Amino acid sequence: MRFFSDNAAAAHPKVLEAIAEANRLDTAYDGDEWSRRLDGAFSELFGTEVRAFWVTTGTAANCLALAALCPPYRAILCHKDAHIEVDEAGAPGFFTGGAKLILLDGEGAKLTPVAIEEACDRIRNDVHQVQPAAISITNATEYGLVYRADEVAAIGALAKKRGLALHMDGARLANAVASNGVSPADLTWRAGVDALSFGFVKNGGLNAEALILFRTELAEEIAVRRKRAGHLLSKGRYLAAQLLAMLDGDLWLDNARAANAAAQQLAEAAADRLVYRVEANELFLKVTDDEAQRLRSMGFDFYEWGPGEIRFVTSWDQQPAAVEKLAAALARL
Amino acid sequence: MRFFSDNAAAAHPKVLEAIAEANRLDTAYDGDEWSRRLDGAFSELFGTEVRAFWVTTGTAANCLALAALCPPYRAILCHKDAHIEVDEAGAPGFFTGGAKLILLDGEGAKLTPVAIEEACDRIRNDVHQVQPAAISITNATEYGLVYRADEVAAIGALAKKRGLALHMDGARLANAVASNGVSPADLTWRAGVDALSFGFVKNGGLNAEALILFRTELAEEIAVRRKRAGHLLSKGRYLAAQLLAMLDGDLWLDNARAANAAAQQLAEAAADRLVYRVEANELFLKVTDDEAQRLRSMGFDFYEWGPGEIRFVTSWDQQPAAVEKLAAALARL
Amino acid sequence: MRFFSDNAAAAHPKVLEAIAEANRLDTAYDGDEWSRRLDGAFSELFGTEVRAFWVTTGTAANCLALAALCPPYRAILCHKDAHIEVDEAGAPGFFTGGAKLILLDGEGAKLTPVAIEEACDRIRNDVHQVQPAAISITNATEYGLVYRADEVAAIGALAKKRGLALHMDGARLANAVASNGVSPADLTWRAGVDALSFGFVKNGGLNAEALILFRTELAEEIAVRRKRAGHLLSKGRYLAAQLLAMLDGDLWLDNARAANAAAQQLAEAAADRLVYRVEANELFLKVTDDEAQRLRSMGFDFYEWGPGEIRFVTSWDQQPAAVEKLAAALARL
Amino acid sequence: MRFFSDNAAAAHPKVLEAIAEANRLDTAYDGDEWSRRLDGAFSELFGTEVRAFWVTTGTAANCLALAALCPPYRAILCHKDAHIEVDEAGAPGFFTGGAKLILLDGEGAKLTPVAIEEACDRIRNDVHQVQPAAISITNATEYGLVYRADEVAAIGALAKKRGLALHMDGARLANAVASNGVSPADLTWRAGVDALSFGFVKNGGLNAEALILFRTELAEEIAVRRKRAGHLLSKGRYLAAQLLAMLDGDLWLDNARAANAAAQQLAEAAADRLVYRVEANELFLKVTDDEAQRLRSMGFDFYEWGPGEIRFVTSWDQQPAAVEKLAAALARL
Repeated sequence: MRFFSDNAAAAHPKVLEAIAEANRLDTAYDGDEWSRRLDGAFSELFGTEVRAFWVTTGTAANCLALAALCPPYRAILCHKDAHIEVDEAGAPGFFTGGAKLILLDGEGAKLTPVAIEEACDRIRNDVHQVQPAAISITNATEYGLVYRADEVAAIGALAKKRGLALHMDGARLANAVASNGVSPADLTWRAGVDALSFGFVKNGGLNAEALILFRTELAEEIAVRRKRAGHLLSKGRYLAAQLLAMLDGDLWLDNARAANAAAQQLAEAAADRLVYRVEANELFLKVTDDEAQRLRSMGFDFYEWGPGEIRFVTSWDQQPAAVEKLAAALARL
Repeated sequence: MRFFSDNAAAAHPKVLEAIAEANRLDTAYDGDEWSRRLDGAFSELFGTEVRAFWVTTGTAANCLALAALCPPYRAILCHKDAHIEVDEAGAPGFFTGGAKLILLDGEGAKLTPVAIEEACDRIRNDVHQVQPAAISITNATEYGLVYRADEVAAIGALAKKRGLALHMDGARLANAVASNGVSPADLTWRAGVDALSFGFVKNGGLNAEALILFRTELAEEIAVRRKRAGHLLSKGRYLAAQLLAMLDGDLWLDNARAANAAAQQLAEAAADRLVYRVEANELFLKVTDDEAQRLRSMGFDFYEWGPGEIRFVTSWDQQPAAVEKLAAALARL
Repeated sequence: MRFFSDNAAAAHPKVLEAIAEANRLDTAYDGDEWSRRLDGAFSELFGTEVRAFWVTTGTAANCLALAALCPPYRAILCHKDAHIEVDEAGAPGFFTGGAKLILLDGEGAKLTPVAIEEACDRIRNDVHQVQPAAISITNATEYGLVYRADEVAAIGALAKKRGLALHMDGARLANAVASNGVSPADLTWRAGVDALSFGFVKNGGLNAEALILFRTELAEEIAVRRKRAGHLLSKGRYLAAQLLAMLDGDLWLDNARAANAAAQQLAEAAADRLVYRVEANELFLKVTDDEAQRLRSMGFDFYEWGPGEIRFVTSWDQQPAAVEKLAAALARL
Repeated sequence: MRFFSDNAAAAHPKVLEAIAEANRLDTAYDGDEWSRRLDGAFSELFGTEVRAFWVTTGTAANCLALAALCPPYRAILCHKDAHIEVDEAGAPGFFTGGAKLILLDGEGAKLTPVAIEEACDRIRNDVHQVQPAAISITNATEYGLVYRADEVAAIGALAKKRGLALHMDGARLANAVASNGVSPADLTWRAGVDALSFGFVKNGGLNAEALILFRTELAEEIAVRRKRAGHLLSKGRYLAAQLLAMLDGDLWLDNARAANAAAQQLAEAAADRLVYRVEANELFLKVTDDEAQRLRSMGFDFYEWGPGEIRFVTSWDQQPAAVEKLAAALARL
């Protein structure tokens, strides 16, 4: 029973159907009918005009956005445990041409306006020190916490005051939206987000992610950078079709709700062991080596996060029976 | 009737079947069972030990290879009409960190040892001029010509003599193999090729290309560079499965033969108008504006290559009836 | 008797005096009194407000300017024999982060509006082809020709029409100004130049060049890029003092006139052998191997430019007696 | 009375004399007689064969070395207060093409083997996390502490064990050598240092620093990278002559001893206020705002390092009378 990560789960059947339907000749790259519907579909979802680009990885979405928001000689403020810092093999440095990540602390990988202000104030305003150009936050965070709309808005307001751009890594945005029940608009552009990596692969997609630009004037540059990074697929319709299938009937939200619900069920069973509140689809638990071993021997698969800490991630397709079994096992530990 | 390009054709049904079969949870990235079979499958095809990486575009395959073969401060020799120079938005500059492309002439986008020698000899051996580190050739070329094995071997020998690496852009390698009937081995590593971009998307694939390393010691660097460029998909099994389906029963070769045969049929019908010999699946024809207009009005779709010149590309799934009609129309022009 | 290049000549005594006078403690970097006078001194020379930066090489001046004028994903149009293409070890690719140089033809390394228009028209306006962002011209050119003010203005007007920036590599701008007798203003910003590499080292300086920004809003970015490239010296006053000494009493113009006059004297003596008109301080002559050998045996040092072609460059401090001897020798050949 | 920094002090008279002596025509770039003597002079100083390159800034020396020691996709371990992290405008990211700096703690900007081991152990050995390739240490450190030879050797041994290169930023190496009285050899290559930025500008030079390669096989790459970064001056003899003058009769060591002695004199006067031991030519003192104000009003110039902390740096030419006055003032505070 696999609770290792949501990034390897099966794709939703409707996603495969959409791919099969797209299997006919059309214009190459993003000139096909599916790709041409993306801007409209995401603009509707967000209630404002956006430009939407398919890419195949969150790393590509994140780093294309950062490259457009931060010149090579400036810096991006992010959490020290942010995915862009920890798990993207230095891709931000590659895509931006050497921009710096300035690493901040914050509980559960969340940034606060105070932490951002302090970091900015520590930087001398001269040519010797790298000046910040952007902030990047992850929602839901790498530890499964969720920024509320007002929390994002506070960071957005600070970004505006400081002349910084704001990027959101939304690899699990669906889980965040499902968690706090606000609109995607409130959680993003209305709160000051300029560019969003909107994840679908962890949420039932096959290999399509979306990069959403609320600052639509960046679209031309992003289009070129996407091509230049080898991310302009010639048969883009198979990616666009996936995204449209996920948006259709709010499949993305249903999937995220399912994953979150499974996580809540586990959280209740292991409430006294939680390292962080469970607000999305990840659980970090304190366990002894012996306990971890017992869970493994019962057939549960998970990630050893660090000494005395394990991580469970629930997926859109997590089997209720498996969740129940794991909940029971956790309660009994 | 579309003869515009092979890069937008439908995917082969077996490719979609393979994707559907891969639609179950497995290890993320390239730890899944399909991805783990790639090295073996391609090693068998090439009759030597290779390392095989899935990527989603030819640009990514080309430029990851070039970045591993050429440091930022050196140059890659290629034809002035090479895809890496003309149609990749400067991706080689991005991936290599600013290496230079040195552009050579040659009929039908083919390089010759003489042209390469002359180019090398023009470069002063000092720190002011950028010294070459690699050669990149395209087979079949951007104009549908095919390097024979001995032609590649002559370039390979020169590369070795000069201490240069040799990269092959094989976006249409299948068509080249189908055309001259030699083994993939003879056309690549036995002829001195170090790294190969092996194209499948133009030949019935959905969105998986292969980067093949004959110098297997480059694999570790390529793996990191792939991740760093945002090209390590989390559900890689859907790409690996496509490649395995294409190799299975030599589907790749059947598809290429079909495309080549269609091109030959057209070539015979328009023999007196050919700009280049037709050796793979592309035709470049001299036509007047009026003739081009007539072809369009008959429902044929194609690319206006330049003044008085049009391009037809045939696909693996080109309908015989459409080919026949176009052949007849060309003969009658 | 050395006619090899002007880039190795001695520094003018006034330049050394200025360095000695600057040899006292002052503020580091460019906060000293000499550096703070640069903007004013060059603004006066050009009759408009400019921002002036010292650097130590023409390559640094050229490439810092190009990096500010051209994003990594676009291109710079220049002559195929331009110094930035031929003799800077790929520095434009390094400083810009991989921007492309698009190489044009033109007599004596001069670009024409027609050649630029044609090059622009050949580029498809899509994401696959690298779009131009800037033009770079060299005045005097690498072959010693001089753009007149109206010639620069024609290119400047075209640049404006096409939305391109215009950079001038003025490693030998002094020789160009001395040659055609127009004002530095007419030859640069009034003709549409955005940024100028103003050379002094070849003209009697020790190791200070100037980067002049007519688009003053680029100054902040250039200041950061200069530091980031390791070109912000801590004792910048020794560079600023050199530049001020060169401007003082138009020493820069006197030096250039001396070099040009020597070149004219040689040109008259070898009029029938000239490959290009002699408009500045360089001569390219057609000679046989035997003739070249005879000149060498007479003690003249020069550059073998190519088969049957040699280059002489005259310096600000070329000895009249040596010039006379060489003129006589050339006449007698 | 200026105790602000050593990086703006006057140049030593012998350095100016050497420049004046070099003021005659010679071969350009580094082909002149002075430049050609550098390898020999530094090899003699270090008692082993080295390759020595002049550059004009410490940033250039540091970052050229790091670019040769660390590929774009790997990381450099350094102290969080290292100059390369804090005060070079992101130059390491620029020169390396996006390599990462991994920031470690340590008293007085000193790294320890334990801190390095821990940092390495925290990095998962996979393609998602950036793997280290090099360590960079500063001697004397940014806080004026000095690594002893055995301390460097312990780091060098660890570097070797881990397969990491070792770079030393020796902007104030002279002060370190003067401080602990060991040979330059013991402090560098015998302790495992691969490349050294050897500073002269802070120690009486005008604008020449040295990059010393103990791994001489890197020389070819460094030569190209220096040119490509715009750091190959055409009249290099003026830089080489400065370095030779500094080595001549151990002027570099005399100058450093003078600066260190002045710092010791101040340290004794302010022993109870020292933030760090004074081992080279920098003092960090705890003072109240009021005390700082009183010192300023007495005519002393210094750097406000942070809240309640000020920095004094002594130079090779610090006037004894001024030192005495400051010592007295500090003692009286």
